[in-house]
Amino acid sequence: VTRGIPESTVRRLSHYLRSLEEFEREGGGTVASEELAVRGQTTAAQVRKDLSHFGSFGKRGLGYQVDELRVSLQQILGVDRIWRVALIGAGRIGLALFEYPAFKSRGYECVAIFDADPEKIGTTWGDLVISGPDELESVIPDLMVELVILAVPASAAQEMASRAVDVGIKGILNFAPIRLDVPSSVPVEDVNLVMELEALSFAITQSGRDE
Amino acid sequence: VTRGIPESTVRRLSHYLRSLEEFEREGGGTVASEELAVRGQTTAAQVRKDLSHFGSFGKRGLGYQVDELRVSLQQILGVDRIWRVALIGAGRIGLALFEYPAFKSRGYECVAIFDADPEKIGTTWGDLVISGPDELESVIPDLMVELVILAVPASAAQEMASRAVDVGIKGILNFAPIRLDVPSSVPVEDVNLVMELEALSFAITQSGRDE
Repeated sequence: VTRGIPESTVRRLSHYLRSLEEFEREGGGTVASEELAVRGQTTAAQVRKDLSHFGSFGKRGLGYQVDELRVSLQQILGVDRIWRVALIGAGRIGLALFEYPAFKSRGYECVAIFDADPEKIGTTWGDLVISGPDELESVIPDLMVELVILAVPASAAQEMASRAVDVGIKGILNFAPIRLDVPSSVPVEDVNLVMELEALSFAITQSGRDE
Repeated sequence: VTRGIPESTVRRLSHYLRSLEEFEREGGGTVASEELAVRGQTTAAQVRKDLSHFGSFGKRGLGYQVDELRVSLQQILGVDRIWRVALIGAGRIGLALFEYPAFKSRGYECVAIFDADPEKIGTTWGDLVISGPDELESVIPDLMVELVILAVPASAAQEMASRAVDVGIKGILNFAPIRLDVPSSVPVEDVNLVMELEALSFAITQSGRDE
């Protein structure tokens, strides 16, 4: 949560950006908050409220200029630039993420990979040589890494996160199933796949009880 | 959101369950809401509030019986049983998920895999033969699949989701970067990896503006 802006608002901003990119491919022009609402599965009032956190966009009765709002949302979300990313953990999840095409196309560029397995250290993925964990303190500053994707076992996650924070990384996408203890100035986004499935089985179980 | 219970509460229930499992391995007995709060990075009052949605647990001054509360949370989250899961999409993300050890150990058992690639159809992952999308309407009911992990490209996601819903699946873990349009009775959990990174770059960018 930043500046008191709820996480759900940030998610919707991402959806609005996707929609604006689609509108632009379809010809651009202007778009009403109602149209953004339909694609974002929300209400026009919510669209206007979400955007109002960040300034005054659009004109009453005329809607938003598609290209202008797209640029503004890119700036707000911080995706009007390249982010240099290190992948810590070159296992199966790490590989799937490394090869995920949308990361690079969205400006998240993997510039370093770390793994503790001696058989992996020194081998290459694409153009990148996999480094050992001992090299973290030199590689991260040298390559000006800002974001870390943490895809190591739970037992190694806290140490790797703390060491990466100590050498200046600014944010962590955490796939390890633990809550990381890092300074509040370093945002962490947790992707816990078991908890996602538990949220599903919770919803199904509880709705069954209501019937 | 089920019965008005916020998603954040469900996440914390998952964390409490993890903590209770740890306490049990460490010997069990009783645990105070303060101890659950520390491991869940929340407050004791929040722990009590979260649990109060689901009944009366623990005794004032004595705390919670670890094993009893663990069993209750498993029932609440619907993880006191096996869930039969189909993986739709046998790409890189699909493979990483299929091999993710925590899924099976938590009771989420993959019983079917689908992919549209003719070169993959008929090949095996573990004990499972990959089926073609045409087989979805027969395989899902035959194997009593309840949950779907959807890891197909955005262009195929809605069709696959709708067809799976039509043959009775109860919930979807969606990795495709679109909002699925399915009946509200079928819960969907979205895992959008680009949006997770955007939430990070948003937080970093906005906190920079505050300084």
